[in-house]
Amino acid sequence: MIEDLQEVKVFAPATLANLGCGYDVLGLAIYGPGDEIIIRKSSSQIGISIKEISGDDGKLPLEVEKNTAAISAQAVLDQLGLSGGFEMEIHKKMPFGSGLGSSAASAVGGAFAMNELLGSPLSRTELLPAAMAGESIASKAWHADNVAPGLLGGICLVRDNPTLDVVSLPAPDDLWATVLYDPAIEILTAEAREKVPAEVSTSVATTQAGHLAALVSALYEQDYALLARSIVDHIAEPGRSELIPNFEGYKQRALAEGALAFGISGSGPSLFALSHGELAAHQVASAFQNDPVEVYVSAINTEGVSVVK
Amino acid sequence: MIEDLQEVKVFAPATLANLGCGYDVLGLAIYGPGDEIIIRKSSSQIGISIKEISGDDGKLPLEVEKNTAAISAQAVLDQLGLSGGFEMEIHKKMPFGSGLGSSAASAVGGAFAMNELLGSPLSRTELLPAAMAGESIASKAWHADNVAPGLLGGICLVRDNPTLDVVSLPAPDDLWATVLYDPAIEILTAEAREKVPAEVSTSVATTQAGHLAALVSALYEQDYALLARSIVDHIAEPGRSELIPNFEGYKQRALAEGALAFGISGSGPSLFALSHGELAAHQVASAFQNDPVEVYVSAINTEGVSVVK
Repeated sequence: MIEDLQEVKVFAPATLANLGCGYDVLGLAIYGPGDEIIIRKSSSQIGISIKEISGDDGKLPLEVEKNTAAISAQAVLDQLGLSGGFEMEIHKKMPFGSGLGSSAASAVGGAFAMNELLGSPLSRTELLPAAMAGESIASKAWHADNVAPGLLGGICLVRDNPTLDVVSLPAPDDLWATVLYDPAIEILTAEAREKVPAEVSTSVATTQAGHLAALVSALYEQDYALLARSIVDHIAEPGRSELIPNFEGYKQRALAEGALAFGISGSGPSLFALSHGELAAHQVASAFQNDPVEVYVSAINTEGVSVVK
Repeated sequence: MIEDLQEVKVFAPATLANLGCGYDVLGLAIYGPGDEIIIRKSSSQIGISIKEISGDDGKLPLEVEKNTAAISAQAVLDQLGLSGGFEMEIHKKMPFGSGLGSSAASAVGGAFAMNELLGSPLSRTELLPAAMAGESIASKAWHADNVAPGLLGGICLVRDNPTLDVVSLPAPDDLWATVLYDPAIEILTAEAREKVPAEVSTSVATTQAGHLAALVSALYEQDYALLARSIVDHIAEPGRSELIPNFEGYKQRALAEGALAFGISGSGPSLFALSHGELAAHQVASAFQNDPVEVYVSAINTEGVSVVK
């Protein structure tokens, strides 16, 4: 028998959602930004309490029933029919409201840490509903395009959001992301939602479906030219790009530096470029060194949330 | 030097389009029904003439400028900047207006036969525009979801119809089709078009895109359970199935016999079931032996249009 764990520390990564042609159904995990979450057993209490939150500028609620990470941790207990006393710490090491899946990172971290502390009774896939319990409270929607890659790693396609039917797609080693985040741009979720039309023409719907399907083939075939042709967004980008000053300029500069594709991550304001190879991703990044943006360069994080030793 | 061909006979197969989740962008070729087209050189004339058409109940035009096969054959000459004298024969060995890609078979056969007779200067992919020249006249639309698999064989995804950017997807050996065609049901193209909404909700669009993308993954992974979950049509089937009496009954019977998926081929009235294995496809077929339908059972035709020796 392994001695029972008394404390677990995990790191849940930031994620890029939509990826151009996969509005609400596609996302990938990156390295770098994310949430560090600690859960430890506590014999002096019943239930979960939040002992410390850092890196959030005081924005995250300490109340367990309102906190994304705690809701997801509690959902794991509920799913297993367990109870007990637990203390949590949440250390945000990524920006809020950036389109990089901040709430999903908290939800994934809370669910995964609790499961690890309990001896991993649930698989990562089995943790999806618990992670969604927190994420859906924070995002007021039921879309797993950030939670799935955060939990499972790599590139995830959500075949069906209601049933959380998630397909892990191949994540080519040579596919790298360059992420641009301008902290001066604030996009309210409600505003970002209004920029996406409630209806689209059937022609746009079938074209976008063809693009997403072609992207899946491109990932299996490692066909970077097809990938570049496929990451085109006719649904969200036309409206949402209006909320991001200089979007078109950033896009043209990234493509001019050799990026395969460029778009808005989630509801923005973060922007992503995908490139063939690490050098190419840094080349894209270097073009923005004098802009007021934070830049992350990352391979695809194929592991997803992980225990910090 | 090989002696110049004086005559070529080709067989262009029937095709199943849409396949549930791939409205206007997905199709596959089958064995069995199709068009046999002969082109021979003729020194006694300039241009193409149609010498004989059979199997068409007198419905196909003998005028070259109105005949789908001849238009596509002429488009090959135009593409190559060639001229000459040619006689054509068109022998239809498949039903008209059935949703099995009758006009696409003629277009593909005409283009491919002419190219073969000229010594194959163009690749199959390079023949796409010529085949579309005929198909678009017949179908009054520019969708390559029948022409592409007819020409290239297998399962084809049209990433982009305007530019004819076609992706060949893996065609598992064990994936078999059972096709049901009731000749008593006539569906006018205009009527079928009206049954597809001009707009869909963004939610339906993204769900359908997720399904199509998951189907692509299922084909690469040979994941038949995922394939079955993915072939669901929220765009065309709800309306078009109203034109097919007993559609729901046929569907339930096919699924009860073990079919993975069931839907309308193209604009109907032909219906298709997909099954895992030849035996399973025949099992589905046997359930309809007392119904007023012609039944075809076929593996995926990975070759596409071919020369008949």
